[in-house]
Amino acid sequence: MTKLKWGMIGGGEGSQIGPAHRLGALADGLFDLTAGALDHRPEQGRDYALRLGVAADRAYGDWREMLAGEKNREDRIDLVTIATPNSTHFEITKAFLEAGINVLCEKPMTMTVEEGEEIVRVAEATGKICAVNYCYSAYPMVRQARAMVRSGEIGKVRLIVTNFSHGHHGDATDADNPRVRWRYDPAMAGVSGQFADCGIHALHMASFISNDEVENLSADFASTIPSRQLEDDAMVNFRMSGGTVGRLWTSSVAIGRQHGFDIQVFGETGGLRWTSEQPNQLIYTPVGGRTQIIEKGEAGLHEDAQRLSRVAIAHPEGFPLAVANIYCDLADAIRGETRDSLPRAVDGLRSMAAVHTAVASAKANGAWMDARPSIFR
Amino acid sequence: MTKLKWGMIGGGEGSQIGPAHRLGALADGLFDLTAGALDHRPEQGRDYALRLGVAADRAYGDWREMLAGEKNREDRIDLVTIATPNSTHFEITKAFLEAGINVLCEKPMTMTVEEGEEIVRVAEATGKICAVNYCYSAYPMVRQARAMVRSGEIGKVRLIVTNFSHGHHGDATDADNPRVRWRYDPAMAGVSGQFADCGIHALHMASFISNDEVENLSADFASTIPSRQLEDDAMVNFRMSGGTVGRLWTSSVAIGRQHGFDIQVFGETGGLRWTSEQPNQLIYTPVGGRTQIIEKGEAGLHEDAQRLSRVAIAHPEGFPLAVANIYCDLADAIRGETRDSLPRAVDGLRSMAAVHTAVASAKANGAWMDARPSIFR
Amino acid sequence: MTKLKWGMIGGGEGSQIGPAHRLGALADGLFDLTAGALDHRPEQGRDYALRLGVAADRAYGDWREMLAGEKNREDRIDLVTIATPNSTHFEITKAFLEAGINVLCEKPMTMTVEEGEEIVRVAEATGKICAVNYCYSAYPMVRQARAMVRSGEIGKVRLIVTNFSHGHHGDATDADNPRVRWRYDPAMAGVSGQFADCGIHALHMASFISNDEVENLSADFASTIPSRQLEDDAMVNFRMSGGTVGRLWTSSVAIGRQHGFDIQVFGETGGLRWTSEQPNQLIYTPVGGRTQIIEKGEAGLHEDAQRLSRVAIAHPEGFPLAVANIYCDLADAIRGETRDSLPRAVDGLRSMAAVHTAVASAKANGAWMDARPSIFR
Amino acid sequence: MTKLKWGMIGGGEGSQIGPAHRLGALADGLFDLTAGALDHRPEQGRDYALRLGVAADRAYGDWREMLAGEKNREDRIDLVTIATPNSTHFEITKAFLEAGINVLCEKPMTMTVEEGEEIVRVAEATGKICAVNYCYSAYPMVRQARAMVRSGEIGKVRLIVTNFSHGHHGDATDADNPRVRWRYDPAMAGVSGQFADCGIHALHMASFISNDEVENLSADFASTIPSRQLEDDAMVNFRMSGGTVGRLWTSSVAIGRQHGFDIQVFGETGGLRWTSEQPNQLIYTPVGGRTQIIEKGEAGLHEDAQRLSRVAIAHPEGFPLAVANIYCDLADAIRGETRDSLPRAVDGLRSMAAVHTAVASAKANGAWMDARPSIFR
Repeated sequence: MTKLKWGMIGGGEGSQIGPAHRLGALADGLFDLTAGALDHRPEQGRDYALRLGVAADRAYGDWREMLAGEKNREDRIDLVTIATPNSTHFEITKAFLEAGINVLCEKPMTMTVEEGEEIVRVAEATGKICAVNYCYSAYPMVRQARAMVRSGEIGKVRLIVTNFSHGHHGDATDADNPRVRWRYDPAMAGVSGQFADCGIHALHMASFISNDEVENLSADFASTIPSRQLEDDAMVNFRMSGGTVGRLWTSSVAIGRQHGFDIQVFGETGGLRWTSEQPNQLIYTPVGGRTQIIEKGEAGLHEDAQRLSRVAIAHPEGFPLAVANIYCDLADAIRGETRDSLPRAVDGLRSMAAVHTAVASAKANGAWMDARPSIFR
Repeated sequence: MTKLKWGMIGGGEGSQIGPAHRLGALADGLFDLTAGALDHRPEQGRDYALRLGVAADRAYGDWREMLAGEKNREDRIDLVTIATPNSTHFEITKAFLEAGINVLCEKPMTMTVEEGEEIVRVAEATGKICAVNYCYSAYPMVRQARAMVRSGEIGKVRLIVTNFSHGHHGDATDADNPRVRWRYDPAMAGVSGQFADCGIHALHMASFISNDEVENLSADFASTIPSRQLEDDAMVNFRMSGGTVGRLWTSSVAIGRQHGFDIQVFGETGGLRWTSEQPNQLIYTPVGGRTQIIEKGEAGLHEDAQRLSRVAIAHPEGFPLAVANIYCDLADAIRGETRDSLPRAVDGLRSMAAVHTAVASAKANGAWMDARPSIFR
Repeated sequence: MTKLKWGMIGGGEGSQIGPAHRLGALADGLFDLTAGALDHRPEQGRDYALRLGVAADRAYGDWREMLAGEKNREDRIDLVTIATPNSTHFEITKAFLEAGINVLCEKPMTMTVEEGEEIVRVAEATGKICAVNYCYSAYPMVRQARAMVRSGEIGKVRLIVTNFSHGHHGDATDADNPRVRWRYDPAMAGVSGQFADCGIHALHMASFISNDEVENLSADFASTIPSRQLEDDAMVNFRMSGGTVGRLWTSSVAIGRQHGFDIQVFGETGGLRWTSEQPNQLIYTPVGGRTQIIEKGEAGLHEDAQRLSRVAIAHPEGFPLAVANIYCDLADAIRGETRDSLPRAVDGLRSMAAVHTAVASAKANGAWMDARPSIFR
Repeated sequence: MTKLKWGMIGGGEGSQIGPAHRLGALADGLFDLTAGALDHRPEQGRDYALRLGVAADRAYGDWREMLAGEKNREDRIDLVTIATPNSTHFEITKAFLEAGINVLCEKPMTMTVEEGEEIVRVAEATGKICAVNYCYSAYPMVRQARAMVRSGEIGKVRLIVTNFSHGHHGDATDADNPRVRWRYDPAMAGVSGQFADCGIHALHMASFISNDEVENLSADFASTIPSRQLEDDAMVNFRMSGGTVGRLWTSSVAIGRQHGFDIQVFGETGGLRWTSEQPNQLIYTPVGGRTQIIEKGEAGLHEDAQRLSRVAIAHPEGFPLAVANIYCDLADAIRGETRDSLPRAVDGLRSMAAVHTAVASAKANGAWMDARPSIFR
């Protein structure tokens, strides 16, 4: 199967979300990074794209140049990822859809409801895909949760409780740090701070797992650091169209929490619990029964969870990235850098010596024996 | 920087370790899969390689054909990964090293000590890299642990306790399953079962973190399922060259444990604890002080831990693979498959409607308001 | 020091809270159970009191008889605990205070605000103690949290998030069980179900740790099981007099949660977290620093936490009750019952044989040795 | 039922184990502290006994005086607890058994095997109970584990892995502290340090749960702090009479571990896991099935686990001690001390005001309302 051609706007060197997109798009060998306008500084963007293997004529200086360059090529990109500042998502997304190019847009997709409605219309009119990166919904055990709700395994959903809170903006002395400040400045972030940043992940997840939509809501916002114009802490109560009660807490001043995104779903005949900090397990309690731990990769998972479990049961989801680190060190070593952390033949030899010594010791009732390879004695 | 050319032997369709190698090698865009002999059945191997994007003339039927094809090309592969059955590692590794090609070999590197010594000699003689895939040592927080020991932060290491145990071979009624049986059959697995399979990861880790080598050991092996000729449970006590006491337990009949690889390192002035099931945290206790949680990505980590932390603090290491799942669904959708799990523009719109409604509700003292976009009312 | 004389109303045989009061009052040898009206059925109450060691003339049939019997005795009780149905708390509490007897009342203290104000007045007028059993505030590490807030260790408190949720009333088919139903019936439970039952523990805790009071609030109640008149799930947002933002979730339909009472307190310079399911630890994160685990019993705790830590550091708070179980078995054994779970001299002997064998084996380089006492060989 | 008469030797003021015995013996109202020789300093011991409510003529100066005083009384004690230094256990235990008094001896019961055999003989000859305080075996969920093994729920036991390790003796600069040093001095501690102190709890537990006995063993001892004559770290491999393989690690230099006593039991058809730091849960995995969490107090537990679960499901086992802390504060308050941590009528009133306000707010669609009682506005 030929790979799909992929382009990226934003996500330049040093950005937070860029590496996750590149790892994500490249990991399964489904996409090639074919085009990019990676930085708001044209030269840096072109240079970085070249270093990432993009051909010179498709390393663009900005998104308009990229749109112009791609839209009429026969071999134009199949997908563009938009990872630019939030206020630009609308304009870029709309332009690429209209040019007939599928889009993966970072959240939030737009700044206003009207813009959102416009994007929905354009996507329908063009028949192109406009996806939004609510990536937490793609964890295998979240898919399992959704499938369990769909198949009625916890009955009608009564109650959803979800939190997405961290403490990384809890230091008032750091509040003027530009990486932090813009999130609470209406000129840059729009009408909402923490709820628009993290809360909407949780709200999407509530809909995603319950297969239902939010109907109405009541909110309590607080700027616990007084200099902030937008909220850094929010509680939103909601009701879904099927009557489900919802509770959503999101905060950026919860000092000590790293990235605690969790969701609990309580139905008539069972409860489910998932947390992003332990993503390989889904906790399930049938009403009146014992709590069970459902493991990623176990036999009998729903198809959508099984399909996306890349590594064998019990290997943590991050395992392939540890392997990737070995390859990073290897690439460095091949290029001549010293990487004394790379396990080498002597390590393999020492292991084999230990295995044979252990076998001999076990046969000799546990006698202590020299475990070193003879060349190291 | 041009990508390195990478070849793979073994790791065919449906294999357990193959996907981890491909994800690992491709994730950072450092390698291209250029050549492969992926299956012991030549046709299946060639076909799978083609589907993974390997050019037809470098999709080989077996490793000998691949060696012959690659060794004299000007653009030959920079690295070959060997993920074949254990008993073939020695021969293949040796042959590629002698042909001047760097090797990443799956563990165990060889079946005997003599073979291991031979590989060490060949690697030295050829000046080529022979790496072994002790990939657990590449987790950022394992690197942090090693760096802390090196810089004296826990003093001289007194004691290391490490376990690598699972229960996936604990079902005696499944013992004749060929995927399980070969591991306990000396004809296929060599002198050791569970210790050679998982135990050597733990033993390598002990050396890796302590920067020291095992000197002698005493072992107790057991075949708790009597039909097994090789051990399915082992305890190895050891001493390192600096006097450190070691304790290593490994088991495949520990029913209920998934993949519990953990290590505790106790020194004169502090203790460290890491577990593969919670890989983003390193637990550190200074003697006489409070236990602290060191987080991947926090400020002030040692360089080797910082360098390999791909995603921002608090994002679980598996986060990019959730993003990768979004891209999988996208590739399917672009190719015309129905993927109703893919978040789309309507989801982005609903989020924006919720944000604006929440802002309005919060301003109206928490009044309940309709949160649906007008096009869905 | 002579023991104080203690009486109890309610808490009869088979009640849920009775044993906790008796264990609590007797554990430290500070009180003797001197009088009781333990059951709404006079004969059963008298009989049970006698069996608990109360003298015949102080084993009463109901609380009025007890009040009459005690109030004029010279050796009258120093304290009465009231563990009767909620709707009777007011009348009984008031009567005993007016008779000059100190009261420990189960929560909720009254059914209405007016009754509560009356009790406050009576307590002030009589100078007697009227305590309420918000017992979670008495865990040593909750006291530590309060002391840390008082001494400014986390700065001004910005935000408190607390949950007290369980799933034991989540089975709609069990909703007519009388032990469950009364809690959601206004005739018996008053104006509120779950919030009055569990939520007020959390609200008290928020005030207790922050040394501040709730000023105003906004609530969202739901009866997720439709047959219930009172709420089984509630969210309460609140503000404290110092400006602290509060969020409180309480539920009885959270299937899979046992008794999850937790509280997080976030201040300007740090965050604290405590949960009743792991009561011996207090999790503390200084802003910009690493999360630390404060252990019950560690050196340097605040006085109020130190004073109430009965057992040495690291022994779980429940340890003395395991010892108590040994004494239960012993009492049975002394009275002639067979208790084969009681560890006996042969167990002590086997341990000693194992110790001596282990010493000998360790000296003999781990040689395997018979570990049985000679009398069992 | 009249209470049993209980005496105690050792466990004086400030001792570590004394409070656990008193709480344990008094908690259920089964015993009265009737006699005591509590301190090696006669006057302090008598004084402390008086303060604990012992009659003057039964507050003894030493154990011989107590033996003489008790053995011929008609109302002599039914049970004596021996909590003196280890080297005195044998002599005192033997003397009281011979006098016809039941004994609960702290572990280790004796210093030598010969002494242990002698105690077994004396207990048999006199028909008196000699119990040993292996109190961890009395946790309800340990009883559940034992009953499950007995009833065949995990099949024949193949493997037991148990650890009892802490780090409280890991500070070499504190090694001369007399509270630490004696444990590693053969003159005071006998032949073994850490294994005799903590290891034998774990070894007893292995026998207790498996209903089997240790037959032979192999040990590796280490003094990781070189000044110690006795081991501070030990690994013991063992085999039980039914063929079960055992692995036991115990350490006092595991810096960062508080009191980590855990046991894993793996059988042919399932695995069990219990840890003293989370004593209310027993983790159970049927072979090929999902891990389940068995909760103290759940319906359908084995009788021995049910009988010893004092508090309702989900209340942590330490809950009654939190209630006990309320009674401590109450006793102080009754005696005139200021205890501002004691929840009082105003707290009860505030709760009721909050409940009524929350009900009103929920009815008014979450309107914010003043939650203070009118007397505080």
